[in-house]
Amino acid sequence: MKYTEGGVCAAKGFSANGVHCGIRRNHEKKDLSLIVSEVPCQAAAVYTTNRVKGAPILVDMEHLSNGIAQAVICNSGIANTCNADGVEKARAMAEICSRVTGIQASDIVVASTGVIGQPLPLEPIAGHMEELFGGLSHSAEGCLKAEEGIMTTDTRPKMTAVSFEIQGKTCHLGGIAKGSGMIHPNMATMLVFLTTDVAISHTLLHKALQMDVRSTFNMTSVDGDTSTNDTCCILANGLAGNAEITDENEDFAIFMQALNSVTVDLCRKIAGDGEGATKLLECCVTGAKNEEDARVLAKAVICSSLVKAAMFGADANWGRVLCALGYAGTELDVDKVEVAFRSEKGTIRVCENGSGIAFSEETAKEILLEKEIEILVDCHDGEGSAKAWGCDLTYDYVKINGDYRT
Amino acid sequence: MKYTEGGVCAAKGFSANGVHCGIRRNHEKKDLSLIVSEVPCQAAAVYTTNRVKGAPILVDMEHLSNGIAQAVICNSGIANTCNADGVEKARAMAEICSRVTGIQASDIVVASTGVIGQPLPLEPIAGHMEELFGGLSHSAEGCLKAEEGIMTTDTRPKMTAVSFEIQGKTCHLGGIAKGSGMIHPNMATMLVFLTTDVAISHTLLHKALQMDVRSTFNMTSVDGDTSTNDTCCILANGLAGNAEITDENEDFAIFMQALNSVTVDLCRKIAGDGEGATKLLECCVTGAKNEEDARVLAKAVICSSLVKAAMFGADANWGRVLCALGYAGTELDVDKVEVAFRSEKGTIRVCENGSGIAFSEETAKEILLEKEIEILVDCHDGEGSAKAWGCDLTYDYVKINGDYRT
Repeated sequence: MKYTEGGVCAAKGFSANGVHCGIRRNHEKKDLSLIVSEVPCQAAAVYTTNRVKGAPILVDMEHLSNGIAQAVICNSGIANTCNADGVEKARAMAEICSRVTGIQASDIVVASTGVIGQPLPLEPIAGHMEELFGGLSHSAEGCLKAEEGIMTTDTRPKMTAVSFEIQGKTCHLGGIAKGSGMIHPNMATMLVFLTTDVAISHTLLHKALQMDVRSTFNMTSVDGDTSTNDTCCILANGLAGNAEITDENEDFAIFMQALNSVTVDLCRKIAGDGEGATKLLECCVTGAKNEEDARVLAKAVICSSLVKAAMFGADANWGRVLCALGYAGTELDVDKVEVAFRSEKGTIRVCENGSGIAFSEETAKEILLEKEIEILVDCHDGEGSAKAWGCDLTYDYVKINGDYRT
Repeated sequence: MKYTEGGVCAAKGFSANGVHCGIRRNHEKKDLSLIVSEVPCQAAAVYTTNRVKGAPILVDMEHLSNGIAQAVICNSGIANTCNADGVEKARAMAEICSRVTGIQASDIVVASTGVIGQPLPLEPIAGHMEELFGGLSHSAEGCLKAEEGIMTTDTRPKMTAVSFEIQGKTCHLGGIAKGSGMIHPNMATMLVFLTTDVAISHTLLHKALQMDVRSTFNMTSVDGDTSTNDTCCILANGLAGNAEITDENEDFAIFMQALNSVTVDLCRKIAGDGEGATKLLECCVTGAKNEEDARVLAKAVICSSLVKAAMFGADANWGRVLCALGYAGTELDVDKVEVAFRSEKGTIRVCENGSGIAFSEETAKEILLEKEIEILVDCHDGEGSAKAWGCDLTYDYVKINGDYRT
């Protein structure tokens, strides 16, 4: 298993592109992306649990009901959510894409991200579909363009891929993701498109995705707001040539590991580039009663505004970590809890048996001034462990969100 | 029922004071407060649901187990939470107070607020108890001093009182509150001390408090962090001379109304002075399936970082309101939802039947630039209604919390 270039274009038979079509006023910013497989793929997706769902999600649920897809079309700028004609527009978007690519509309995954409640104009999409399709590329550059087309307030592209072997065949799995606000764990999250050339049954592909998001995207939070348009979708075209994975055997385990390597990397990229973020935070809970408790505790710490603001200030205010653990909603023996902070500069223990211990504020500051901070919580009360990813809360988060629409 | 001066000193027989004793380094800031009744009181309290509880709460649970109290001693600066010797120190604080006031230690309510995990020094408290006791005053000024002693990042004192009649006797009920961060609804919240001269049984006093906080302090959120030290306590000394209220009769209804008038006013003051806040937000949900759903929906809107940041920017980004309603966790027929914004400048409807409607951005801006904003949500799906109070998310919230300890 090794990281490689190419993102969604790493897997055989996938190409991608992104263009500026005019949904956004800024001509410098791409706003329409396309990912295509040479052949039809097994496809699976998980979606937001928000009861307000973007129209594209309603259409994707129909399109993916047979487990087959061959392309993804996605615009940024407008979410196509809370519009009376949203579903009609999402269907039309797939049809426009179908006419140009020759792929059946029902085999196209549709996604939108951006402002909620503004009508989606179809003309820019129709007017640029030929250009978008014509420019499809199998290169890493094609993937980068597609990524740029789905980015909103993201400051950095988020793409990753791994190569690995199954039955002696070289396989690939890669993905792109869009952050960076309205990010909060709940079944699926944000927009993530994954591609692989592994041959795998639809049932196992869907199972793998569902299992994986529980410990990856569902454990990532930027601001506690679960988006209306969250979609995480994977396409598997089978071109690697392995015998189709149809059992939960060793090959499936390798596939799960590859998937997890890609999704964890995307989670770290999403959290680290959260709106206004200056730091990636990773909370590692160990010694919890069970895994579910560990998840709940790790998420509570990552979601606490006060912990996030303290990390922005490089302030070792561990009392706020204890406070968040306390209101997380799980049983917790506070008197056993141990807390430490870790970064490239080292590790510092700040709390033992639920009480503060003497530590050097100077050393703590040095550790917390780094860009990647681990908050280590040991409950000393069992075997459950979990990780959650988030970011600090900064002036820029407020600035970005104080006037996002204008 | 009319609002009056005096806060906790409005009710007959109560006096209060606050001094700087030296727990805080800043000599300008009072950090120790005392409220005393001339006679023993019926007393009731509700506490944080955080599993990490401040040591004073553990001591108060013992002290109030017989339903009797006569004084409240409270320090700010240090929370006396997550300290190995916390309970011992909280008991000692009551004993120091007892020696000087002559009130039994077990009739004294102890409270602390401030940084978690730092040891509480008793010397400053012991050294200033005579001064604190000697300066007790029945005046509004005494109440103001007590309020100043419990304030942390609060920028304004929070005190209120009402006078009303029961059985021809003039009665009073008043209170003080401390904001303004780590504020999130969960059973009790923040520090609130209420006093009244009404004669009422302990059972009904406790019931009244429990019922009231459900729709007042539990519906108030500044930052989603449920504090470890939340305590809301009421003392009733019976000096108004009414026949003791022992039934849920008309007198009890009047008492409940007086209590609610004081607590709603304190909620508005706490939310409006939330850390870094420039605006008070009030979310009014109507037409929900039932009252519980209405509460959950109103709280979700008030707690959304994205809604809060949009309000800071006076941006009528109603899609974020819909998004928050959607992830609140209740059943919701999105297609019926109506949203409007209201302030002193007028009301503007922005969403009908779950979709955006045309509105003047200019008028919306004018409305949202005011200091008190109502977010009106009508679910058109039942009779349930609820209000929640919060504030905008600003640069200053981040600034205050980025380096709170130093």
